[in-house]
Amino acid sequence: MSTPQRFVKRNEIYAATFNKGDLALPPSKKIIVVTCMDARIDPAASLGIELGEAHIIRNAGGRVEDALRSIIISQRLLGTREIAVFHHTDCGMMTFTTQELQSKIADEDGPEAANLVNRIDFLEFTKLEESVKHDVKYLQSHPLVLKDTTIIGWTYHVESGKVTQVDH
Amino acid sequence: MSTPQRFVKRNEIYAATFNKGDLALPPSKKIIVVTCMDARIDPAASLGIELGEAHIIRNAGGRVEDALRSIIISQRLLGTREIAVFHHTDCGMMTFTTQELQSKIADEDGPEAANLVNRIDFLEFTKLEESVKHDVKYLQSHPLVLKDTTIIGWTYHVESGKVTQVDH
Repeated sequence: MSTPQRFVKRNEIYAATFNKGDLALPPSKKIIVVTCMDARIDPAASLGIELGEAHIIRNAGGRVEDALRSIIISQRLLGTREIAVFHHTDCGMMTFTTQELQSKIADEDGPEAANLVNRIDFLEFTKLEESVKHDVKYLQSHPLVLKDTTIIGWTYHVESGKVTQVDH
Repeated sequence: MSTPQRFVKRNEIYAATFNKGDLALPPSKKIIVVTCMDARIDPAASLGIELGEAHIIRNAGGRVEDALRSIIISQRLLGTREIAVFHHTDCGMMTFTTQELQSKIADEDGPEAANLVNRIDFLEFTKLEESVKHDVKYLQSHPLVLKDTTIIGWTYHVESGKVTQVDH
């Protein structure tokens, strides 16, 4: 079965019992969760977040610098006041450097691609807890993040499904 | 109960029966899903995506231009070859313009914030299907997206939980 066929088939099952069609646009718990795109993470299930409660932003690594546009929209237009930042064990972001990825793409695709990719910071990291602390600090000191925001850092453990709060 | 207390409590329940600790880092179905951060969307549940199968990238609107760093990492380092782009009904991205949001923040926060926010394109849109088509085309023609990628656009309906494939 192709991906679109599978999506349609499984979505039919989901929609058949769907009864949350009247939820409001602004997240009811006023929370943003920022986490990695990693296939082994289900933020809603692992944190018990119900539909309608929280904005969930996901990108490679769960890096907040790359989530800023979304965070500003969430806070200024949709009323969120807490941000939870999750990075996780065994993250792909700890397996390469920006320079290595830029070189790989330049080698594979030539000068036009090289010119474009050399402008991208891939925001990799080497130490899990330090990257969480870095991102919490980044948000705390960013002029476009609201001053009264509660910002908490976390790690997610793909081996156990457990989360741990990071002190900072 | 505070958000951290709730996360910890609900995560204990999740982790107690967690048995997917040995999944591989690369997504087993080689798929990327790009969708909105909207609180009313659960991509895994609504598409029947199991843990370990797909990268899920989420930002305000599900805009691919803002997902490029993540898509490049996903394709080049973790082997994904299909991209499904979802935008949805009643999206907050259809309720404002970049200029309005920039003016609001400049008014509220003063010149330092104005100077920063004026450099941000918030990537809002006015027509749902057109924004999906725009994003599919953007990926199809982007030099840093692999040429053999299957790219399909979709809409998600927050009122019914249903998805619809967008022809392009």
